[in-house]
Amino acid sequence: MQKASRNKISMAVIRRLPKYHRYLRELLAKDIQRISSKELSEIIGFTASQIRQDFNNFGGFGQQGYGYNVEDLYSEIGKILGLDGKYKTILIGAGHLGQALAKYEGFNEYGFHLAGIFDISDKVIGTKIQNVEVMPMEQMTEFATKEKIDIAYICVNATSAQEITDMLVELGVRAIWNFAPVDLKVPENVAVENVHLIDHLMTLSYFLDSE
Amino acid sequence: MQKASRNKISMAVIRRLPKYHRYLRELLAKDIQRISSKELSEIIGFTASQIRQDFNNFGGFGQQGYGYNVEDLYSEIGKILGLDGKYKTILIGAGHLGQALAKYEGFNEYGFHLAGIFDISDKVIGTKIQNVEVMPMEQMTEFATKEKIDIAYICVNATSAQEITDMLVELGVRAIWNFAPVDLKVPENVAVENVHLIDHLMTLSYFLDSE
Repeated sequence: MQKASRNKISMAVIRRLPKYHRYLRELLAKDIQRISSKELSEIIGFTASQIRQDFNNFGGFGQQGYGYNVEDLYSEIGKILGLDGKYKTILIGAGHLGQALAKYEGFNEYGFHLAGIFDISDKVIGTKIQNVEVMPMEQMTEFATKEKIDIAYICVNATSAQEITDMLVELGVRAIWNFAPVDLKVPENVAVENVHLIDHLMTLSYFLDSE
Repeated sequence: MQKASRNKISMAVIRRLPKYHRYLRELLAKDIQRISSKELSEIIGFTASQIRQDFNNFGGFGQQGYGYNVEDLYSEIGKILGLDGKYKTILIGAGHLGQALAKYEGFNEYGFHLAGIFDISDKVIGTKIQNVEVMPMEQMTEFATKEKIDIAYICVNATSAQEITDMLVELGVRAIWNFAPVDLKVPENVAVENVHLIDHLMTLSYFLDSE
C-alpha cells in the first residue's frame, strides 16, 4: 500500500475497490486461498488487465505467475479503503429512509458507528432508533462539536439539504452521504457520496422506453 | 429526439440526463424560460461543450446563439428518459429499507406506480404499506404474470437476491433496481441499477483515511 501516491488515484479505480472487497470476502467465505487475475476477472467481470492495473495503483499485490493471496489482498484493500479505522456517523432526518439507514445491519460491522440522529419533528424527537436517541436539530452543533463526527448521512428534503450541509462543513465534518434529490456544494476537502433515488428510476425507464 | 440512434448513446451520457432533468425543473420553477449552454454549465457543473455534445446525441435542442428553451428542453429530456410513460413496479422484501422505498414520496409523480409488495415474513404479509398489500412470495409469479410489471425493486438479503432476479427475468421483468449487496447476473436485455449502500460508505472512508 502506498499512501503517498493516493492523490493520483482516479475516482473510477476507487469506486471499484469496494467491489473487489466484496468479492474477496465471498472467496474467503468459500475458503479459497489463492486466485489469479484471470480467475478473479471471470467472477468480477473486469478484464484481468484492468484488475492488474487497478492493483498496480497501490503497488501491486501479486507475484507474477502465483496469483494473489486472497486473505492478504482482502486485508490490504480493506486498509486502503480505511476499513481498519472506526468512523463516527450522524444521521440528519429520521423520516422513513433515515430510519431504514439507522436500522440497516452491516454498517457497524465495517466500523461505521451511528452516534446520533437529528430531526425537527416532535413525532420522532426523544424516541430511540436502534438505541440511538433522536435529538432536536438545535442540538446538532453542540453534539458534533463535542463528539468528533466523521460522516453525516443526509436524509432531509431537497430544500434544507444545502443549509444543513453548510452547517456540517462548518463543524468540520469531512464526509457526507447525501440522499436528498439535490447536488450539494461543498469545499474541495469534503467528500460527498450521493444516492439520488429518482435518477436510478429514470435510468431504468430510459431503458424500458428505448427497447 | 432520435429514438433510432439511442443504442449508440453511452451510459455516461444517459446517467447525466436525470441531472439535466432535475436542474431544468428547478429553472422552470424559477420561471426561467431560456438558458445558454454557458449559463447551464455554471449551475450544473459540466462544461458548456460537454452539455452541447450531450444534447447533440439526441439531435441537439438549441438554436445557435439563442440558447435553449427551458420548457422544451425539460419536456424533451423527460421524453428521452421515458417519463411520458407509466411504469408498474413491485417491491420484493418489505424490511426497513423496502418499506422506506414503498413510502417514498415522489416516485408516483414521475410515473412509477407501486402495484405490489412481496415478502416471506408473516409479520408483514397481509399488512398494507401506503395502501399496497404485502403478499407472500409464492404469489409473486401469478401476480407478475397477470399484471405487466416493468420494474422490480429488490430489497432482500444478498443470498436470495439472485434467485429472485432469475424468477423476475423469467416472468419478463426488464428492469431491476437492486439494493442487495451483490451483483446480479441478468441477460443483456435486462437493465439493472444498483444501490450498494456499503460501497458508498467505503468510498467515504477511503477519503477520510487518505486525508
